[in-house]
Amino acid sequence: MQKVLLAVSLIATMAGAGAPASANDDLTKLQQDPKDWVMSTGDYANQRYSKLSQITSSNVHKLVPAWTFSTGVLRGHEGSPLVIGDIMYVHAPFPNTVFALDLNNDGKILWKYEPKQDPSVIPVMCCDTVNRGLAYGDGKIILHQADTTLVALDAKTGSVVWSVKDGDPGKGATGTSAPMIVKDKVLVGISGGEFGVRGHLTAYNLQDGKQVWRGYSMGPDSDTLMDPEKTTELGKPVGKDSSLKTWEGDQWKIGGGDTWGWLAFDPNLNLIYYGSGNPSTWNPTQRPGDNKWSMTIWARDADTGVAKWVYQMTPHDEWDYDGVNEMILAEMDFGGKKRKTLTHFDRNGFAYTLDRTNGELLVAEKYDPAVNWATKIDMDKSSPTYGKPVRVAKYSTEHNGEDVNTKGVCPAALGTKDEQPGAYSPKTELFYVPTNHVCMDYEPFRVSYTAGQPYVGATLSMYPPPGETNMGNFIAWDGKTGKIVWSNKEQFSVWSGALATAGDVVFYGTLEGGRCEDRQGTLQVQDAVGHHRQRHDL
Amino acid sequence: MQKVLLAVSLIATMAGAGAPASANDDLTKLQQDPKDWVMSTGDYANQRYSKLSQITSSNVHKLVPAWTFSTGVLRGHEGSPLVIGDIMYVHAPFPNTVFALDLNNDGKILWKYEPKQDPSVIPVMCCDTVNRGLAYGDGKIILHQADTTLVALDAKTGSVVWSVKDGDPGKGATGTSAPMIVKDKVLVGISGGEFGVRGHLTAYNLQDGKQVWRGYSMGPDSDTLMDPEKTTELGKPVGKDSSLKTWEGDQWKIGGGDTWGWLAFDPNLNLIYYGSGNPSTWNPTQRPGDNKWSMTIWARDADTGVAKWVYQMTPHDEWDYDGVNEMILAEMDFGGKKRKTLTHFDRNGFAYTLDRTNGELLVAEKYDPAVNWATKIDMDKSSPTYGKPVRVAKYSTEHNGEDVNTKGVCPAALGTKDEQPGAYSPKTELFYVPTNHVCMDYEPFRVSYTAGQPYVGATLSMYPPPGETNMGNFIAWDGKTGKIVWSNKEQFSVWSGALATAGDVVFYGTLEGGRCEDRQGTLQVQDAVGHHRQRHDL
Repeated sequence: MQKVLLAVSLIATMAGAGAPASANDDLTKLQQDPKDWVMSTGDYANQRYSKLSQITSSNVHKLVPAWTFSTGVLRGHEGSPLVIGDIMYVHAPFPNTVFALDLNNDGKILWKYEPKQDPSVIPVMCCDTVNRGLAYGDGKIILHQADTTLVALDAKTGSVVWSVKDGDPGKGATGTSAPMIVKDKVLVGISGGEFGVRGHLTAYNLQDGKQVWRGYSMGPDSDTLMDPEKTTELGKPVGKDSSLKTWEGDQWKIGGGDTWGWLAFDPNLNLIYYGSGNPSTWNPTQRPGDNKWSMTIWARDADTGVAKWVYQMTPHDEWDYDGVNEMILAEMDFGGKKRKTLTHFDRNGFAYTLDRTNGELLVAEKYDPAVNWATKIDMDKSSPTYGKPVRVAKYSTEHNGEDVNTKGVCPAALGTKDEQPGAYSPKTELFYVPTNHVCMDYEPFRVSYTAGQPYVGATLSMYPPPGETNMGNFIAWDGKTGKIVWSNKEQFSVWSGALATAGDVVFYGTLEGGRCEDRQGTLQVQDAVGHHRQRHDL
Repeated sequence: MQKVLLAVSLIATMAGAGAPASANDDLTKLQQDPKDWVMSTGDYANQRYSKLSQITSSNVHKLVPAWTFSTGVLRGHEGSPLVIGDIMYVHAPFPNTVFALDLNNDGKILWKYEPKQDPSVIPVMCCDTVNRGLAYGDGKIILHQADTTLVALDAKTGSVVWSVKDGDPGKGATGTSAPMIVKDKVLVGISGGEFGVRGHLTAYNLQDGKQVWRGYSMGPDSDTLMDPEKTTELGKPVGKDSSLKTWEGDQWKIGGGDTWGWLAFDPNLNLIYYGSGNPSTWNPTQRPGDNKWSMTIWARDADTGVAKWVYQMTPHDEWDYDGVNEMILAEMDFGGKKRKTLTHFDRNGFAYTLDRTNGELLVAEKYDPAVNWATKIDMDKSSPTYGKPVRVAKYSTEHNGEDVNTKGVCPAALGTKDEQPGAYSPKTELFYVPTNHVCMDYEPFRVSYTAGQPYVGATLSMYPPPGETNMGNFIAWDGKTGKIVWSNKEQFSVWSGALATAGDVVFYGTLEGGRCEDRQGTLQVQDAVGHHRQRHDL
């Protein structure tokens, strides 16, 4: 599948007469070489699939560490290193040091970039001082620092080529996500939903860091880069100022919808895909309306940023079910017709498959039976609530009201899955998904906005579903039928990403081994087609 | 050699009619079982020698990590874990968490003890927040916390059996060293030489933590536990108040001589061996006299603490050459006569072998040719300076005076070796010693004492010896002849300990691999008899 996509992409790049010149043709080529890992997501399709087939279920038990490397930081490490030729590029949580390691010399440091950042950014990083990775293109390594500085480093020397400020940490904006390089642009999102930061995706010129376009998650059409007639949701034009109409007063200005998840790109369609996060505050009573376009899957034109289509999964969020999780692009057969698909495992517990050319909703099913806040997604195209979740009143934190503790909502705010990415194998045509299996009590309360101060407005407690003890599952998912094919119970939430391989083994990490408090884990190896597992202690 | 010692020890324990009952007979047995590692030093003799012979120079390249465990702390980790039966006990730098890990279950945590300590102790830990390890005896795990609390934990559950305060961190006293259990007592030293803390070795009752005796490094005989007639140095009685006579005024009360190194014990002689550290301050002009008994090898009676003999290596220190390094006990042939020996690689760059029954000096030679502050140790028994170093005036920081930068002194203050312990193989009859190869400029200045404040009085800069680039060597040393048998040049100071084995391979770690700033290292494997090495990246 990936091979097909990339072949198409190459042709498009080479034959594209009217298309703007690409500054990074090598990126497309590098994605095809399974010895490289040129972007955190593995490829533009976000499949996190390696074509390497040397490791199989019969020899994987022989894997042993060759060497290890410490970033010198204990906090959460998210995102994978990049491998480009003989060099591995490793990033770190705050202070976001970048290391270039020589793979021909046991990981000897070739260069190191250590940004000087004001540590006052740490308390405005909502959940941990993480960073989800680097981007590579045109001989540059791109880093989005905690303080929102986007910096381009010379990949050979680590020296700074350019840098630009993407947001204001003084108002709670921070950088945590991996940028993606698409043609001659660097795309990057922003964090700060718990501080009322209005989310945006921004394109910068790869050559000099100049801003090219910025699309906000909410606001007037000129901010959201929406065309009232041409931008669609579920096939219908969104209309003029579709976002503003769903907010009361100026709340949209501090409305969240941040963009801290993974990006995807279809070179053939020239569309960028990503999700927007929760509306601010977490207290739904303070923000009447659907709060568009928070909690939304976006498809934007890579050159102009104009939205081609959107789909809001959780209108008027009541549980912090951010929509930022990765979009995994594939090609699937639906009733004999090949569809270019986008599959997304949302925090709200539903897995969606859409036609990524136009945003048509093909499948929307729970990927954890514990999910209880909605019975289903309305799939009746003739219904006025088509595409929307069918909510259960007793789990509605708005219905129950402020200062009332709504109990037993599943999933918890961290979602059936959070930013830990799944993988897709075009060989097995299955998705491999690390999940959380956790419920919560949620009590919203009134909160006032002060720039740079937390703007949350809810207290939570989380626990495994009643009568169960496992807090996670690792599942194989059929994106065509919307069904779990197999599922591994895990003691803790599966907080690692997954890697699928052409050797038909899937890798993921767990927190078990009694060592979760020390952020040590265990590598799980899963047969991609069956249900056997092996465990390696790390 | 170890086998002989231990056999003697067992007989002594079992036959000792008049000796006090030992609460920890199992300790002696456990030392004999090569599957266990019951004290940080390996055994009472400090040989750090494993009788296991399965790993040899021909199969060592096949070693791979089985699992790793993180203490969750980044600072310096000193001392080895203990292994007793199926349990590994791991200690950590501040906050000094202790973990009991199940070796039958990939290191799963059985219990964890996390002391609550006032973090104000951190700034009075002179050089890092290290801890050199745990002691085991009578079903208890003993920890010396940073705040000087000595705590006994139930080895099965981790619950506190008793705890006692060994010093006052408010005055700069801290706990960093590994206690040693000898019969029914816990022995422990104290840190704080850079804060004017007067050093002592203290014996506590293993059953309930009650103090049994305390021997200070300086002060009146009632404090030093010296018998003017029976305590000897180089065969002569030390005389009344031998310490007080070598200090001006009350300087001895803030005179240092701390006791933060490794302890050794000879069960047959019933003597405890250890070294005392630098006199305070580092400015020699402020403390005229020999500053006894800083910089001294001590042999104390295990039951009473009374000193049997002493030997001061560096009277009136001018360079911070602490005498705390480990004493390695062995048996050696001198002129056809078997001697019970003690070998000590001092910070001052000389390696000493003494008869440990009476403190007779047998060998004293430089173990790094770079050493230049003294030409030799005077070995002429008829000389008035017998046993003392023959100093070189131009490297005397006292001779050059206060506020004068004495240049090019070798070794630097951290010594030709610091607390990183060497090993001894009774098979090869050689010592394997990690060393520093560093020189310094040293400028003393006047400093006034304030309790709990740094009391150093010198500024230093350190560098490799002129014309050289390697800052360390790993050497094999013949303790009988005082000669280097072979030497490995190392890029950095060798800051790891060494382990000798019956498989004729010696293990040590280095800081190389370009990763020293992250405290990652490389495991070196050295053929114990030859000069071949293998390298494993960790």
